[in-house]
Amino acid sequence: MSETFKTISGGIVAPKGFKATGVACGIKQQKGRSDLALIVSEVEAAAAGVFTTNVVKAPCVLCNQDYIRNGVARVIVVNSGNANACNGERGMADVKRITSLVAKAAGVSGKHVLSASTGIIGHFLPMDKVEAGIAEAVSKLHGGDGSDATQAIMTTDTFLKEIAIEFKIGNAPVRIGGIAKGSGMIEPNMATMLAFITTDAAVKAPVLQELLRRAVSTSFNAITVDGDTSTNDMCLVLANGLAKNELIVDMNSEGARQFGEALQHVCSYLAKEIVRDGEGATKRVEIVIKNAGSPEKIAKTIANSPLVKTALFGNDPNWGRILAAAGRSGVAFDPAKVEVTLAGTKVYTQGAPTPFNAAEVSARMKVKDIQIVVDFHEPDGETATVWTCDFSYDYVKINADYHT
Amino acid sequence: MSETFKTISGGIVAPKGFKATGVACGIKQQKGRSDLALIVSEVEAAAAGVFTTNVVKAPCVLCNQDYIRNGVARVIVVNSGNANACNGERGMADVKRITSLVAKAAGVSGKHVLSASTGIIGHFLPMDKVEAGIAEAVSKLHGGDGSDATQAIMTTDTFLKEIAIEFKIGNAPVRIGGIAKGSGMIEPNMATMLAFITTDAAVKAPVLQELLRRAVSTSFNAITVDGDTSTNDMCLVLANGLAKNELIVDMNSEGARQFGEALQHVCSYLAKEIVRDGEGATKRVEIVIKNAGSPEKIAKTIANSPLVKTALFGNDPNWGRILAAAGRSGVAFDPAKVEVTLAGTKVYTQGAPTPFNAAEVSARMKVKDIQIVVDFHEPDGETATVWTCDFSYDYVKINADYHT
Repeated sequence: MSETFKTISGGIVAPKGFKATGVACGIKQQKGRSDLALIVSEVEAAAAGVFTTNVVKAPCVLCNQDYIRNGVARVIVVNSGNANACNGERGMADVKRITSLVAKAAGVSGKHVLSASTGIIGHFLPMDKVEAGIAEAVSKLHGGDGSDATQAIMTTDTFLKEIAIEFKIGNAPVRIGGIAKGSGMIEPNMATMLAFITTDAAVKAPVLQELLRRAVSTSFNAITVDGDTSTNDMCLVLANGLAKNELIVDMNSEGARQFGEALQHVCSYLAKEIVRDGEGATKRVEIVIKNAGSPEKIAKTIANSPLVKTALFGNDPNWGRILAAAGRSGVAFDPAKVEVTLAGTKVYTQGAPTPFNAAEVSARMKVKDIQIVVDFHEPDGETATVWTCDFSYDYVKINADYHT
Repeated sequence: MSETFKTISGGIVAPKGFKATGVACGIKQQKGRSDLALIVSEVEAAAAGVFTTNVVKAPCVLCNQDYIRNGVARVIVVNSGNANACNGERGMADVKRITSLVAKAAGVSGKHVLSASTGIIGHFLPMDKVEAGIAEAVSKLHGGDGSDATQAIMTTDTFLKEIAIEFKIGNAPVRIGGIAKGSGMIEPNMATMLAFITTDAAVKAPVLQELLRRAVSTSFNAITVDGDTSTNDMCLVLANGLAKNELIVDMNSEGARQFGEALQHVCSYLAKEIVRDGEGATKRVEIVIKNAGSPEKIAKTIANSPLVKTALFGNDPNWGRILAAAGRSGVAFDPAKVEVTLAGTKVYTQGAPTPFNAAEVSARMKVKDIQIVVDFHEPDGETATVWTCDFSYDYVKINADYHT
């Protein structure tokens, strides 16, 4: 279905004309942990974004939704360790201050600075530290490999999530780079995490926006760690056109198709990396729902079931929990037609359990990547895939201890 | 609002004309743990029930829905340790066999025997053991206090859940007894657990059914442990009329009001006991949503949020997670009007955090019963209360190890 793309090094600075850096300015309590990132395009870039659907939106989300309306941006500034959400009027004032400080230091228009925050909700940002951090970050903006920016957007993530690929549009080599952070409060509608994508492709902003929306719907919006949607989630993309491909202006063009597929590849890779690094996760789970009405709804209900997730953690082939979760998803189906395949073994078919060696299937579940397939055998049914992770002691530990 | 009722001893055998017992017949793997219960009325009783809304229904649920249609029953037979769900045609054949064995041994009509099963899904019942267990249980049906029946319906429950009350309808003293089991896969729609209620009140079956439906909607359907709805859930009530009160035939009668309130009291007590004993729970949480559209939907989203539940386990006054969960509930509201009160302390009001001593609030959270109140201040809003529990290491431990 999707092409294979040549992976290259460099993450978000792999595309021409992008620089990125990260610094530790003291927003995070742990001294020396980097917490402020800058991503800068040398020239004005077409900009697109998708944002959290949570009714409670952080001011950075609201501000970006305003600034991005004209489809142009140059800088993304991100802090971790503090979500700056639910902070009343001061929260919005702080976002405006940050974007104007960055604009001044980087010599760009204030409306060309997008921003993102992630971390604890309801604490004011330490603005003196943020201000010093911005100055330091701008001064450090030279030819690094960008991984310090990836580092600076992390919270409970345990590894860097980045990718860069190269492909051609016409004869022009084009690059896309992306970084993301997880790893709790991950349930889409929309992205439920932060992801920042850079490209040197030349794409008109409305086309970029539509291609991003499509790519997100089957990548970041098809993952879930715990069903919780954050107030700050977003995925932003900047396309600065320095690859000199023929400008993509039409959704139906070959260029849009090629770029869209590449963007999809980048988003899917990052989304699956987020799930692999879900809080406390010991394994990544791919849930494929076949031939069903509303397959995505069924898949997400299974993916978010604490009983399914703890069974996966325990390598327990307890398929009854999978069926029970499907049954409460709100989607109608005939249980007698359902077929469940767990880690490659058919465990339930035609309304009854299939005899299987539980110890053998359990042993086959002790892997990093496991697949659950549920086929509802409905003639007019559809198929959807969702990715999640298991639910371990460490999820509880991480989230019981996060705040105080 | 609700009257206070005189609590008496005796559980489900407190009402006149009921006997109950429990035996260990070897369905559970742990030797000697009781796993088969019988509840018997001396005379025919009006019967009512509410059942799981899960699309995947165990055969005991389907069989009861059939048998209860005529509104009469005498016996409830329950096994724990095996849900007998998703077992194809053999599952239903086994239920029919159980009810007819019980009918024969107890000398009642086969259609007057209701049944329930709880435990692992997808394993066939060991029918030879069940058959021996039924014979033993019938032979033991004399004047015990019924607590061995309560014992026999438990799975991962850590304590017995039973209640009996006495009150008057007209001049007739009436009794209601009830038992219940939890404690995982607890999210209503309907009861998501097993509850059995006996009463010597004289109530016509249709009135009994409607009063039960109402009582369940604000008790068993207002609790959630993990958002998972079981395939086997049910709440059954038998009313044998031996209290000789004037037969309750009309929903608008004083008798219906009195009996309905008493039934509500019994259901609420048992529902809250189930939450107190939620798998791995260290505390019970009452979530009150005030002056909001769809308050129950908001309450349940907060109640099922793993991030909220783990914060409660950690005694962490992380109210941002409460707001974020409300924000993704699908209900529209104005965040600037919301007020959050956690363990008696106002922590968020008018769109901004209220300064509070986190250590002090955390200390106040170290209790067995905690309350969260979220007021949305909408003029036409409504109020709802939901009960849940926190999410601990032990929830993961219990559910990762349950099966193999």
